[in-house]
Amino acid sequence: MSSAITFHATPVFPRGFRCASRNVGLKPSARDLTLFASEVDAAAAAVFTRNHFPGAPIILGRETIKGGVLRAIIANSKVSNVATGTRGVEHARRMAMAAATELGTAPDRVLVSSTGVIGVQLPIEKIEAGIAGMTSDLQDNPMVGAEGIMTTDTHPKALSASVGTATITWVAKGSGMIEPNMATMLSYIFTDAAFDAPTLDRLLRAAVTPTFNMLSVDTDTSTSDTCAILANGLAGAVDEAEFLAVLTAGCRRMTEILARDGEGAEHLVRVTVRGALNQTEAHVVAKSILNSPLVKTMVHGADPNVGRLLMAVGKCFDCTIRPATTDAWINGFQVVGHGERLAFDDAVVRETLSREVVDLSVSLGVGDGEAIAYGCDLTKGYVDENASYYSS
Amino acid sequence: MSSAITFHATPVFPRGFRCASRNVGLKPSARDLTLFASEVDAAAAAVFTRNHFPGAPIILGRETIKGGVLRAIIANSKVSNVATGTRGVEHARRMAMAAATELGTAPDRVLVSSTGVIGVQLPIEKIEAGIAGMTSDLQDNPMVGAEGIMTTDTHPKALSASVGTATITWVAKGSGMIEPNMATMLSYIFTDAAFDAPTLDRLLRAAVTPTFNMLSVDTDTSTSDTCAILANGLAGAVDEAEFLAVLTAGCRRMTEILARDGEGAEHLVRVTVRGALNQTEAHVVAKSILNSPLVKTMVHGADPNVGRLLMAVGKCFDCTIRPATTDAWINGFQVVGHGERLAFDDAVVRETLSREVVDLSVSLGVGDGEAIAYGCDLTKGYVDENASYYSS
Repeated sequence: MSSAITFHATPVFPRGFRCASRNVGLKPSARDLTLFASEVDAAAAAVFTRNHFPGAPIILGRETIKGGVLRAIIANSKVSNVATGTRGVEHARRMAMAAATELGTAPDRVLVSSTGVIGVQLPIEKIEAGIAGMTSDLQDNPMVGAEGIMTTDTHPKALSASVGTATITWVAKGSGMIEPNMATMLSYIFTDAAFDAPTLDRLLRAAVTPTFNMLSVDTDTSTSDTCAILANGLAGAVDEAEFLAVLTAGCRRMTEILARDGEGAEHLVRVTVRGALNQTEAHVVAKSILNSPLVKTMVHGADPNVGRLLMAVGKCFDCTIRPATTDAWINGFQVVGHGERLAFDDAVVRETLSREVVDLSVSLGVGDGEAIAYGCDLTKGYVDENASYYSS
Repeated sequence: MSSAITFHATPVFPRGFRCASRNVGLKPSARDLTLFASEVDAAAAAVFTRNHFPGAPIILGRETIKGGVLRAIIANSKVSNVATGTRGVEHARRMAMAAATELGTAPDRVLVSSTGVIGVQLPIEKIEAGIAGMTSDLQDNPMVGAEGIMTTDTHPKALSASVGTATITWVAKGSGMIEPNMATMLSYIFTDAAFDAPTLDRLLRAAVTPTFNMLSVDTDTSTSDTCAILANGLAGAVDEAEFLAVLTAGCRRMTEILARDGEGAEHLVRVTVRGALNQTEAHVVAKSILNSPLVKTMVHGADPNVGRLLMAVGKCFDCTIRPATTDAWINGFQVVGHGERLAFDDAVVRETLSREVVDLSVSLGVGDGEAIAYGCDLTKGYVDENASYYSS
């Protein structure tokens, strides 16, 4: 688990990876285009959104990742190039070609991402013009790349950690339209450890399942979700089990960072379910609590209305739920016993609900299934941001 | 459909039904206790919440309704008597007994309902004292009864319509924690038509399926949902098909009224899905659009961010969705064609999204499945109300 892993105080790149970001005129002045590059070919794997309306970069990315080799990722923010038809796919190809030309590689070694508003054509000429000369900006700070892919994020997101002689670096963005079910909005992982593409794919899926796939800001699954890993091998081989532990810990920490920076969020909410009939039911119950608007507003208002936890458990119609064996805790303080609200001092619960991290735990007492889900509170800030996202 | 039915300008009761409501000290001054009574025994049927933590009145009500005969409904607001253990069920029984004594009938002919905060014991002595003498307040105006069961509702809700020589009257409450999946919060239907209990049960379920069960304010399923129908037969027999048509139309209209008065809501949102593979998939897609926080905030802000409609359709992973055959309309104005956002004048879409009633329609083009779902926009008012519900 993440407790055993130490992340670097300031995120750094593994050997051979660098990035650059620029404003190319998609946003008024903020950086809106990022290039990540490895100095040598890297083995690569990726998982993408399961949404039935995948963006053009996802359609192209599924084709690209089949090769199992990447040199670079080119990503823009502001416009997601989704629901843009064959012209959108053509624009994604032109973006890959421009980055490949700039780096002296082939377009099928460049992964393309776009994030932002849906249903608007990409201003491809601005992007092509912006890519030219970007190699001269390449630098060692992952935060520079994280900046260029931000949409409603309030801060750029990058992490790094060591595993043996190698380094793993996570760069991500995402704040709303997040319940990935396959990966999160845009999440890139770089390492200098040596793995082949099929192994990387297996490790990535194992790390994503209990982390990014248990994240929900607002139940809405983006059309652009992408999680990719690039391993350029410059640090040689490392122990696979140790690598997977660090990989998963970083994905878990990045999941928490994304949840805490959910649109309008003021709290990170972690929901732990134990004693479910099986893992599937544990997932369903954890997501039900995490996604309940009434639980989310209870946390937001630090209102000790703990009956809502039972409501959210109880609406999992198809799960095995026994009121008599159901207990619940908030930050370790028990509020429900045997399916009944316990007598407690409201002020104590109010205080604990006011903390930045709120851990909600439920024990169902019917089996061994466990799950942890990650999300945030529901605030007026979320409504504000999303009532005018297109227009602002 | 509802267009063929005329509701009375002012709601009235069928022959033999009356109601009373009082403040008995659960709320500071507003009415918090309602008695509905028939002067003769009425055939009765009811459907209840599927939540695994049903309130004490639901546990008792499931037992009571087996008899198929009711004389009265006694209902309080402010405290829902949920998650209150065996003491809660005992309180519900005492409430039925007090009403039965007041009316000179048996307690198994009284349906009990409680609505309000979860996990708090009912102040049963106040309720028993308040029920005494209530028969002398009985009157003909259904709105008086509707008033006593309000929680966060902004207005009392009652409707009536004629069917042959009989009348049907609907009285309901509900504003938040509403995605019934079986019935809505509290919804009572009174008629003087003559039907036996099994027939009433069948008609009620037929009417509830496309109406209350397609309502969602916030995806949260209450622990107290109850929908009951009482038929005292004083108007004699009426045509069953005609009765069902009027019954369904009233349930549909009441569903719309509840949705429009969803907590914090400023719009009624109706989502129509056509051309789904089958009816089940039509329901899933309609609910996905209706419950998407990003669609709800788009309506709230009248923001022409129509790509969100595709996102919400596309996240129905297990449904058959073909981008090439997917079209969408807002109040009849086409915004998506063949899975792509159409070029349109933003101002036109902004204007239509500003209307009080917003009809979102999607045609999937893969089959004959149809469904309509009812809900509302997501506002800062919803967050405000629910961040301090317990405390206020």
